[in-house]
Amino acid sequence: MNWQEVKKAAKEKLKPYCRVCPVCNGIVCAGEVPGMGGVGTGSSFKANIEALNKIKLNLSTIHDVKEPNTSVEIFGQMLSLPVMAAPITGTTYNMGGAVTEDVYTQEVIAGSLMAGTLGWIGDGADPLMYGSGINAIKQNNGKGIPIIKPRTQDEIIKRIRIAEEAGAIAVGVDIDGAGLITMALKGQPVSPKSPKEIEELVKATKLPFILKGIMTLREAEIAYNMGVAAIVVSNHGGRILDHTPGVAEVLPEITEKLKGKITIIADGGVRSGVDVLKLLALGADAVLIGRPVVVAVFGGGKEGLKLYFENIKNELKQAMLLTGVASVKNVPQNILRV
Amino acid sequence: MNWQEVKKAAKEKLKPYCRVCPVCNGIVCAGEVPGMGGVGTGSSFKANIEALNKIKLNLSTIHDVKEPNTSVEIFGQMLSLPVMAAPITGTTYNMGGAVTEDVYTQEVIAGSLMAGTLGWIGDGADPLMYGSGINAIKQNNGKGIPIIKPRTQDEIIKRIRIAEEAGAIAVGVDIDGAGLITMALKGQPVSPKSPKEIEELVKATKLPFILKGIMTLREAEIAYNMGVAAIVVSNHGGRILDHTPGVAEVLPEITEKLKGKITIIADGGVRSGVDVLKLLALGADAVLIGRPVVVAVFGGGKEGLKLYFENIKNELKQAMLLTGVASVKNVPQNILRV
Amino acid sequence: MNWQEVKKAAKEKLKPYCRVCPVCNGIVCAGEVPGMGGVGTGSSFKANIEALNKIKLNLSTIHDVKEPNTSVEIFGQMLSLPVMAAPITGTTYNMGGAVTEDVYTQEVIAGSLMAGTLGWIGDGADPLMYGSGINAIKQNNGKGIPIIKPRTQDEIIKRIRIAEEAGAIAVGVDIDGAGLITMALKGQPVSPKSPKEIEELVKATKLPFILKGIMTLREAEIAYNMGVAAIVVSNHGGRILDHTPGVAEVLPEITEKLKGKITIIADGGVRSGVDVLKLLALGADAVLIGRPVVVAVFGGGKEGLKLYFENIKNELKQAMLLTGVASVKNVPQNILRV
Amino acid sequence: MNWQEVKKAAKEKLKPYCRVCPVCNGIVCAGEVPGMGGVGTGSSFKANIEALNKIKLNLSTIHDVKEPNTSVEIFGQMLSLPVMAAPITGTTYNMGGAVTEDVYTQEVIAGSLMAGTLGWIGDGADPLMYGSGINAIKQNNGKGIPIIKPRTQDEIIKRIRIAEEAGAIAVGVDIDGAGLITMALKGQPVSPKSPKEIEELVKATKLPFILKGIMTLREAEIAYNMGVAAIVVSNHGGRILDHTPGVAEVLPEITEKLKGKITIIADGGVRSGVDVLKLLALGADAVLIGRPVVVAVFGGGKEGLKLYFENIKNELKQAMLLTGVASVKNVPQNILRV
Repeated sequence: MNWQEVKKAAKEKLKPYCRVCPVCNGIVCAGEVPGMGGVGTGSSFKANIEALNKIKLNLSTIHDVKEPNTSVEIFGQMLSLPVMAAPITGTTYNMGGAVTEDVYTQEVIAGSLMAGTLGWIGDGADPLMYGSGINAIKQNNGKGIPIIKPRTQDEIIKRIRIAEEAGAIAVGVDIDGAGLITMALKGQPVSPKSPKEIEELVKATKLPFILKGIMTLREAEIAYNMGVAAIVVSNHGGRILDHTPGVAEVLPEITEKLKGKITIIADGGVRSGVDVLKLLALGADAVLIGRPVVVAVFGGGKEGLKLYFENIKNELKQAMLLTGVASVKNVPQNILRV
Repeated sequence: MNWQEVKKAAKEKLKPYCRVCPVCNGIVCAGEVPGMGGVGTGSSFKANIEALNKIKLNLSTIHDVKEPNTSVEIFGQMLSLPVMAAPITGTTYNMGGAVTEDVYTQEVIAGSLMAGTLGWIGDGADPLMYGSGINAIKQNNGKGIPIIKPRTQDEIIKRIRIAEEAGAIAVGVDIDGAGLITMALKGQPVSPKSPKEIEELVKATKLPFILKGIMTLREAEIAYNMGVAAIVVSNHGGRILDHTPGVAEVLPEITEKLKGKITIIADGGVRSGVDVLKLLALGADAVLIGRPVVVAVFGGGKEGLKLYFENIKNELKQAMLLTGVASVKNVPQNILRV
Repeated sequence: MNWQEVKKAAKEKLKPYCRVCPVCNGIVCAGEVPGMGGVGTGSSFKANIEALNKIKLNLSTIHDVKEPNTSVEIFGQMLSLPVMAAPITGTTYNMGGAVTEDVYTQEVIAGSLMAGTLGWIGDGADPLMYGSGINAIKQNNGKGIPIIKPRTQDEIIKRIRIAEEAGAIAVGVDIDGAGLITMALKGQPVSPKSPKEIEELVKATKLPFILKGIMTLREAEIAYNMGVAAIVVSNHGGRILDHTPGVAEVLPEITEKLKGKITIIADGGVRSGVDVLKLLALGADAVLIGRPVVVAVFGGGKEGLKLYFENIKNELKQAMLLTGVASVKNVPQNILRV
Repeated sequence: MNWQEVKKAAKEKLKPYCRVCPVCNGIVCAGEVPGMGGVGTGSSFKANIEALNKIKLNLSTIHDVKEPNTSVEIFGQMLSLPVMAAPITGTTYNMGGAVTEDVYTQEVIAGSLMAGTLGWIGDGADPLMYGSGINAIKQNNGKGIPIIKPRTQDEIIKRIRIAEEAGAIAVGVDIDGAGLITMALKGQPVSPKSPKEIEELVKATKLPFILKGIMTLREAEIAYNMGVAAIVVSNHGGRILDHTPGVAEVLPEITEKLKGKITIIADGGVRSGVDVLKLLALGADAVLIGRPVVVAVFGGGKEGLKLYFENIKNELKQAMLLTGVASVKNVPQNILRV
């Protein structure tokens, strides 16, 4: 199994929900929600890619780094690379259903572990979705991270308990899911949260609590002040609000103030090891990858995902070699061209 | 009836005048005047879209806003959303004639009311056009706004009287219509107006007087000083002069000085609730939508237009939820990313 | 005969040298020299268009201008519009030969006069070319302007004498033709000129002497100091040197210093009356139009050219009306949006 | 044989590895490594082209330069133009094998000499590659330059000795080849070098030592301080690391400090004599051309390459004439528009 074969198989299975383009950039699938695209004109998805592409690297090969180290500790876990699988749900209405929710979450969690990293799972309008993900985490000794929709406080705390029972490493809420009017229509209301409500969630569990969907320093600081363990700088893959900036554009404003005080994970448009290195240089501790993980799993199951993460790790290593970075734990900002 | 069906039906009826593109952006129809395009290279139409697209929103879901309020009062009328139907004429030579001028104006006025807002009607070379619009307003108890071409003072005042008799809520002139050389050729001369002439029109009626086609602070201030009740910042959908800036580009220069002193309505390239929110954040009190209203009416009549405005309202609500805006009456500028 | 018919006829006759694109912008014909394109990547041709497109106009209809005046005096001649036909040669190798050099120059001179303006004629490797143009000027009572290639001083002066005998209004050299290595290969050497050599040419005739092909303030000032009557700011339609800036980009640097001291004519990418107005606002006294004149003449002869110039005049008038400009002799810079 | 014929023949022979596009810009072949493209998204290849295209020239024909001089001395050799053939290997896996490595290197060295300049040859995973190049240099009396991959110090010094025995004019290392993980997989490890290791290589030979693959001032200064004779500012044709800046973008930062102290050769995206002139104006002493040399050799052998270099020389001469540059040894920066 090689990556071209995985992509080819995925293309068949994802038809016509995802075209598995040569570069996954949100252009062809603009507006396809449900589906794999960005919402509206698709500009928020595209902005993630463009913000990353704008950043240039200083090629550097006069140095002593001969064997770069890509491993990093996140939530007490040693990962072989600073990249995890983003929480994604809806294999039926977003991806056509060739893989069930149960199988998808199993493969994501197992494949991530095989590659030495972690898979995250999500929550959705259909209550079975969260269950699928939790089962997958449970069957893998808790090695996974569930993300809950911004439901009522009670409903969230109920799901935090389920995560705790499954032995999950950490738990969180994708607060930008507040915009999912469809969930309310299906009797599963979601909404924004006040700082107090966030604090209440943080205090409701001993697990590290993650807030996903932060796009401004202001909200990152609120999260920090409310005791959140980690934020995910994310615009939800551009699927929630049209015309947000790209993640790589807002990230440095946040890391400049909060780097080292709170775990900062970046999620938006990562397609290669070079992209990973850029976000680390901008101050992220780790990154999430979304859509390509879907391609990997649909095309090759957990083996496909393992292969994908290994490719990313090799690309990351090569990029570190060519910029003189010894460890992902300390990526100097000056590898970026200003 | 859903929006996809409306678009599909409209595509049939508008062929080949309007292709009902996935995103209505002025690219395919560039230069098609008569028709639905922008004049010349179409750059002024495209500039409206581009100016809006350049503006990015700060995604924000840590806040207390759970039920945003989209209603606003304009000219003493309570509207369910700050969006009205722009005045458009020429269903035959611009749109192919599958819908008559009479039917079009009826549907615009009635459909807007069904959605809790107002339709505007226009004036044209053929004197019957203004009549069609006035009839539609009359049949709906005056709930509509007629806009008159910048004819001679006498001819305008004659039409203001007709508007008054129809019980119209307000009345105005689209002064940028001064460039319509074709009207002169048909014996209906139009021309620019001096400040004095504008003042004379303002004083000729007790109705709120609207000046449509303002693109600079200088002219906005003249309008204000002459007693105009409302200006419409508009480049006439890019159909009058090639190479003007986009409306969203010039709007903040005007609102910075005149917000609160005069009603400011923005008209140019609005395609979604997100676009509406952007223009409100830039200081507009309300916005007009043009071409998509044509699609809605040709594809679904007044029901189609009602559906369209409801979609826009839902998008606007969701965008407010995702940026923390409680009411359209007070949209803070800092939801925009500078 | 209307403009669409002229374009259609021209498209037939110019095939495949010119595609008579909806907008003539140098994209399709990039690199086609000989032919109608820009040299190399075509970037200098495209830069002319792009530089003009970047400039935006302030729409303005609150003013007293009701009948704009487009007439201007150039070299003692009253022109009905500030637009003349650029000197172009090579109807065979650049345009396919459906119109001969003799006929082309006759139509350009006659058609320009019919429209109340002037045609310019050129010089080329084949000595017959200059002769064709001079004959056309002679047959029209000298109402035309010949432009000579930067040959040896003697050869230029010989051709100045011929121009004088033909009763030409003015005469000049397109000094940027110095790059035409092909002319040297055909035994007609051209080369750059020193300031002294230019002064010698100026003094060799009582006719106003024009230097065409100026793209920097430095060279414009030399021309002025050497007694040149008029400069043409031009990159030779992008046909001489790849990667020059556009004419509209460099023009203001020149006019800022020399406006009123020397006649300044702009030549590059003008496609509409709006473009004419922009260049006048940037300080040009008049403009030249090149490729569209070829289309007009190939498609409709002198009648076609007359029609084309009248269209441009109407567009210019409308643009003046919509920006509040009373006369082309005094176009305020503040009609442009900075 | 003309250039169009050479391109046509090359297109046949390079199919489908290279499409021999009208403008060779890295768009169609993006990601094709092996092959002729840039790595990943191809952005580093494209950046070379874009960085050059952004630079505009001041057209200037009022001056005394009538016969520009394109010859320059590099490594004690008088070259008829400041352009050499870049080192390229892998005619089989990168170009399809219609020309063998042996023949390719022979044609490059011989064709370059026929045009009055020098060819460079490379090193690769297959040890035979370096041998092919060295043979070609030997058979041409040492008139060529070999570039060795950044292998272990011993392996490099062994190959330096071979270069010395072949009578090569200079020798060097393409240090950015450190990123070629594939070489390690084939038992030919490469890696970055410390400043000390570079100094050791410089001292190991009396030949001028070249460091190829410098993209920052910092590394250029290290090279200078370690005694390197010449650097090649290069991103390896965009084939090593995605998202580097273009060569023309970083070049001026390097030349501003090191011009005159060390020989500076620029390598990236040169496609015309105008491009050569731009890089010289930015401070380069000479430039390398890569992909078009492959096209020339595949399409026309050494005669094709001679023809290609002559075309470039003529274009360069014409560009010098049109910007007033007398000699390539002294190209003033003010021919560039800031």
